[in-house]
Formats: sequence, structure tokens, C-alpha cells
Amino acid sequence: MSGCTAFEGKNLNEEYGKLREAYEGYKAQGLALNMARGKPGAEQLNISNDMLTVLTPSSDFTTSDCPDCRNYGNLDGLDNTKELFAELLGVDKKNVFVGGNSSLNMMFDTIACFMEQGCSGEKPWNKQEKIKFLCPAPGYDRHFGVTQYFGVEMIAVPMTKTGPDMDIVEKLVSEDASIKGIWCVPKYSNPQGITYSDETVRRFAALEPAAKDFRIMWDNAYIIHDITDTPDTLLNIFDEVKKTGKEDMVLEFCSTSKITFPGAGVAAMAASENNLNILKKRYNRQTIGYDKINMLRHVRYFGDLNGVLAHMQKHRAVLEPRFNMVLETLDRELSGLGIAEWTKPNGGYFVSIDVMKGCAKRVVALCKEAGVVLTGAGATYPYGSDPDDSNIRLAPTYPPVEELEKAMNIFCICVKMAALEKLGA
Amino acid sequence: MSGCTAFEGKNLNEEYGKLREAYEGYKAQGLALNMARGKPGAEQLNISNDMLTVLTPSSDFTTSDCPDCRNYGNLDGLDNTKELFAELLGVDKKNVFVGGNSSLNMMFDTIACFMEQGCSGEKPWNKQEKIKFLCPAPGYDRHFGVTQYFGVEMIAVPMTKTGPDMDIVEKLVSEDASIKGIWCVPKYSNPQGITYSDETVRRFAALEPAAKDFRIMWDNAYIIHDITDTPDTLLNIFDEVKKTGKEDMVLEFCSTSKITFPGAGVAAMAASENNLNILKKRYNRQTIGYDKINMLRHVRYFGDLNGVLAHMQKHRAVLEPRFNMVLETLDRELSGLGIAEWTKPNGGYFVSIDVMKGCAKRVVALCKEAGVVLTGAGATYPYGSDPDDSNIRLAPTYPPVEELEKAMNIFCICVKMAALEKLGA
Repeated sequence: MSGCTAFEGKNLNEEYGKLREAYEGYKAQGLALNMARGKPGAEQLNISNDMLTVLTPSSDFTTSDCPDCRNYGNLDGLDNTKELFAELLGVDKKNVFVGGNSSLNMMFDTIACFMEQGCSGEKPWNKQEKIKFLCPAPGYDRHFGVTQYFGVEMIAVPMTKTGPDMDIVEKLVSEDASIKGIWCVPKYSNPQGITYSDETVRRFAALEPAAKDFRIMWDNAYIIHDITDTPDTLLNIFDEVKKTGKEDMVLEFCSTSKITFPGAGVAAMAASENNLNILKKRYNRQTIGYDKINMLRHVRYFGDLNGVLAHMQKHRAVLEPRFNMVLETLDRELSGLGIAEWTKPNGGYFVSIDVMKGCAKRVVALCKEAGVVLTGAGATYPYGSDPDDSNIRLAPTYPPVEELEKAMNIFCICVKMAALEKLGA
Repeated sequence: MSGCTAFEGKNLNEEYGKLREAYEGYKAQGLALNMARGKPGAEQLNISNDMLTVLTPSSDFTTSDCPDCRNYGNLDGLDNTKELFAELLGVDKKNVFVGGNSSLNMMFDTIACFMEQGCSGEKPWNKQEKIKFLCPAPGYDRHFGVTQYFGVEMIAVPMTKTGPDMDIVEKLVSEDASIKGIWCVPKYSNPQGITYSDETVRRFAALEPAAKDFRIMWDNAYIIHDITDTPDTLLNIFDEVKKTGKEDMVLEFCSTSKITFPGAGVAAMAASENNLNILKKRYNRQTIGYDKINMLRHVRYFGDLNGVLAHMQKHRAVLEPRFNMVLETLDRELSGLGIAEWTKPNGGYFVSIDVMKGCAKRVVALCKEAGVVLTGAGATYPYGSDPDDSNIRLAPTYPPVEELEKAMNIFCICVKMAALEKLGA
């Protein structure tokens, strides 16, 4: 995408006219298609339906650590649920906290806790002068929304094919003690589907931040969400920080929202004992405990990690054709034109596409006019502002395949129209 | 309990010796009885078991406002669940926010929100000088824990038989703009089981606080938790604040924790549109939404408010004998002695007893030594400190009746022993 496009030398207005005609044809259909959010589709939701009746009135509600899961108690979750997440995350059970239905909420509460209480013996973040967070971009809009809510200044860090640009990350955190953390989606990153390389993970584990209370928010949302035969592998960051003695620097999050039911799943985090002690001081005031019936429902349904992994194969069967559809359409319609570049992820929930600079908002607007809702342009950058106005996040999971096909055709037309407009059509 | 006890003129040491003998007899049994927390017992949990299988793989997961309750979305809850809570609370559906599994967590989040964002156009509470909260006492320890967590100074206000002493409440809030709120359990108060009189509710609705951002935290935890044929009635505070034009002053909370399953119930709040708008700004950053499958499970199980009320009769059938056991034992063992006074609630989860001044801690310690765990003495006061060391909260719901009987016998012995020790035995 450096300069020269396939439209050089062509009659731009003629090309544009043809596209406009196709576009108007779609527009006349009064479509309502949505590729905006990373939501599982109905077929995926059905996969987990049997979990609903795993617990019945005659079930045994006793676990090793709880006389009755239906009652109050067990602030940090059931032991058997901690075990399952410990296995999934590759950490010790004692480092796991099992929470409610949302890992986003756990991340929010974690930031809120450090704002109020501080960590590593430093002053609470809200009692310090201006504090800052690094935001690899493009990234997850809801992460940025959390730090924005608390008035944390956000600094965008460019993403590379191996993760955030670590030269920049290392330089910034070692020089500026007001930088208190960084948001990471280390596997199948949102939106690019990039998995951090081993070197990137090791450099994270070896960071030498100026701030003692610097924290890595390691949102492993797509930890087992593979969609191809060549899944990515991610180094276990807790193994690495053990080697560098920086266990307090990392907090890892995950959930079953995209394994069982979004909104009715179970969220968990892994953290050092020091961090958990700080967080539990807050949680102990905040709640008596989370939904243990739903924890038990999950554990009884899956049995163990193998059960979870087998379950993910069913998701893959639904998702792979959708991603293929998106990528094949992009290849067919846009490759070689010099007006767009995109990622081909082995998992996760998104395809990220960079259109010509200054064109993303126009593409999203054109799509909207034709009945195709996309994630807002800029949403993948802190403060919702993409300096190049170039990145668009496509979410192929929710619409049925036939709708997806139509939406992708419209999308590609809009990318070309916006490019031609920029080129002077 | 004013001065003269039934032990006047008796040989205190002889009386004490007899009690000590009975006490040692119990102690030798190595008991482990618990009257500490307001937890439903196993029999009560069984009442709701059929709810577990209300939703099955073949259920319809569509509601009027949600194409699929299994998926993300609906930040403030399902419409049908809002309707159910609106009916329960006697408010408009548009004033209801349905949340997660814990009303305590909603209250915590509400305080956290006002700390961060402020309300009524005033500065965020955490940007103001020292702020204060009124705490009717004895009261609910977890309420006090929330404000303590946020560094809010707590001022105890005495409870009367008709609710908090409103002369004091009115005077304090009208004079001191740093007082930002008050904790209330208006029906079957924790721990005394007192229901605020109509006059008390009206005086709350007519408060003229010096602080524009003063808020009443109206925790209606026991709204339909009657245990006798003569249940208390509570005036609807939202009807009253409508008359005084102070809708923004009240936030009401409730949950099904003690209707269906503690920890796997559904919590809700009622608030003015202004307050909900402030709270939704936070919630919108905090989560994508709460567990709608559990909301739907509840609504499908109950049908409507009549279903909920019929359900509560089953709880009453379990609880009434327990409360009777506690009250009969107190009457038999302690009435007329001049060493203790207690409440006879028509609902709720507790019996509150005031023993002789300076004796509560001793009673709790004696009980503990004999294998009976009570709520810590002082827990019902802000900062866990009862100035009279007199109040003890009894929670009759959790132990089986035969254990409760034993525990109450031991408790009464301990109350008498502590009194005699104070009198000089």
C-alpha cells in the first residue's frame, strides 16, 4: 500500500460509476447486516445448550471446598473451577481468582482497585499526579474505555507482526514513572489476530519499568480460540516472569464468554499472591461472592480441560467458513489493488483491514448507508481516534454466512469507492 | 434493662456456679454451631431447585427486547426482568436497572461511581474534602464496610422503634454539607427487624440536605420476607419523593438472593433517570452486560409477582419455626431478668438482642468457647465498634432447628454468665 495503486492510468470516474451502480443496487435492497461486534452467532450459542440442564434438582451441590454451591460464600470461586482455569492458563491454582460473568468487569475492577488502593507499596493511582497507560493500537476499544473512564492518559504504541513495538514499550516504561500499565491481547489480538512472538513475551517479562507499580494487563481472551490447522502458540508469561522475578508485574484475564455463553459465562484471572491480596481487600467489600452455581455448571459440563478443548473444535467448525468467506472475498476483490492490507488470523474473532489513509471513516459511512454496520472507524485506537483514519475491524462471527457474503461484497465496493474518491474520482 | 436485675439479693456466685456447670456440659460436647450470618438453610435452597431446569436446550431465548438472551448485550437487563422488579418495587420499569448476582455489589458500584463521577452536578466525591455518611446503628456490617473502603467518615445514628432517629438525621444533613448519604434497610432492618414507620419514610422524602449530592441508599433487602401473619408494611419511598420533587435523592436496591439462590440470584435497583444516566456511564465502561440467562430463568420460573409471593410462603414455612424457637428460648430463659432486651420481628433474617452494657464481647467469646459462632460483637456498628458493647445479632436461618435449639440454650447461659460476671460474681 505504498503509493502506487492498480487504478493508475485508468479512468477513475468510469471505474467509480460502475462501483456506484453496484452499490446503489445493494442499497435498494434495504439490507440490515452487522459486522460490528465480536459476538458469537446463534449456531455457536447452540453448541453449549446442553450445559443448561447439567445441574438438576437432584444434583449434588457439594464440592471439596463448599458445603453447598447454592449458598453464599467462596469469594474467590470454587476450588474445582480454579483448577480448570489454572490448567487452562498454565498457572498454580492458588494464583487463580474466579469471578462473575465478565472478564472486562474484572479488568475494570482491577484498575479501579489500583486507583483506590495502589499496588507494590506505592500511593494509590488516584492520589498520584497524572498517570498514563500504554495502548498497543489497533487494539480493543473496551480496554481503552476503562482507562479513559478513570482519566488515565493513554499513549498509543504501534503494533507489529510480533506484537507491540517492544523498542518503544521498553523505552517509554523505563523512562517515564507515570506510565502505570499496558493493555495486551497477546493471542489473536483484537483486532489484528496477531499472536505475540516468544521474544515479545520474554521482553515483556524482562521489562524494567521506572514505576514500581507498573502492571501488564494480559487479556488472554482468545487463548484457545483457534480456527485453522496451524494455530498460533503463545509463551506462558507467568513462566517467564517467574524467571525474571517479576510475578507482580502481570495480571492475566480470560473467560468462557466465547466458549459457552457470552454474558452467562465465567471469568477468571491469574495473579501473584501480592496482587491477589490487594484485590481481595476490595472484593471482600464489594461482594459476598460470585455465581457458584454457574461455576459448578461449567465444571460439571466440561469435566476437564480436554472437554473444553473438544468443545472449541465445534466453535471452529462454525467459524472457519466465515473467516474463509471474509478472506476469500478480500483476496478476490481487493488484492493487488494497492488500496488495502489485511491480516489472516489463525484464530480470534476479527479480521483487521487497513484501507487507504483518510478513507476508513468514509468506508464505514458508505457501508452504513447501504445497510452494513461496521465497528466505528477509529474505535480500535485510544480516544477512538485513528491518526491515519485507516484501520477497520471486521467481525465475521455473528451474521449467517449468506449475509456475511453480501456484507463483504458491499464492504469491498465501499473500500474501492473511498479509494477512488481519494484518488480524485 | 434500667438498673435493677432479677439477681438482686441473690448469691451471685452460687447462680454463676450452676450456669458454669451447664456451660461446661455443653462445652464437653465439642459442638460446632453457627448463628453468625444471614444465610438461608439447605431446606430453603431446595425450595428453588426447580428453577435450575426451567431453561432447556429447546427453550425460546428470545424476549421482546433481546433477539437471544444467551448473547451479549442489554446493559441494564432484560425488559421482562425489569418489569418483574418494577412490580415488586412499585416503580416504573424505566427506573429499573437489573444487574448481576449481588445487590451489595450494585451498592458498592454506586458509591464507587459517585466517588469517581459525582452526582447532581457536584464535584466527584473523591475530589471533595472529607465526606461523611450516616449509619443508622445497629445496622448491616457490609454496608459500613463499603463506605469504610472508600474512606468515607461514618457517623452512627441511633435506631428507634420507627427507624433511624429522624430528629438527628434531619439536623445533621441540613447542617453539614459534607454528609453525602445514609445507609437504610427500611423493612425488617438488619439486625433489629424494624420497619420504618410511614412518618419516618415521609421525613426521609422531605429531607432538606445541605449537600445537593446527598443520597439515600435504600436497601430493601427484605421487601417480601415476611415470617408471621402480621407482616409489616413499608411506604413506597418513590411515591413520597415524587410528591416532594426529590426523586434524585433515593436509590433503592433489592435482589432474589434470599428468594431463590444466594449468590446465584438476580439483583436490581430503582433510581431516577438522572441517577441512572450517571450510573450507566460507568456500567457502560465496566461490562457489556449481566447474566441474562439467569434473568430469563428467574422470569420464566416465577411468571409474575404472584409467583414470587407464593414462593415466599414456602420460605416462611421454613423460617417461622426457627424464629419462634429463638424467641421462645429468649422469653423462657431471659425475660424478666433485666439483663437483656430483644426484638420480635415480623420478617427479615435476624433477631437483635441488647445484653448488659459491656457484656456483648464477653457473651460472644463465651459462646465461641462452647462451639457456638455468633456475629462478632460490634459488627453492627460503624468501624465494628459498639460504644455500649451491648448489641448482638442472632441469625436463626442457617442451622437446622435441633442445632438452633442447642445453640440458643448455650447463648442464654452465656448472657446470664456475662451479666453475673459484670454484677460481681
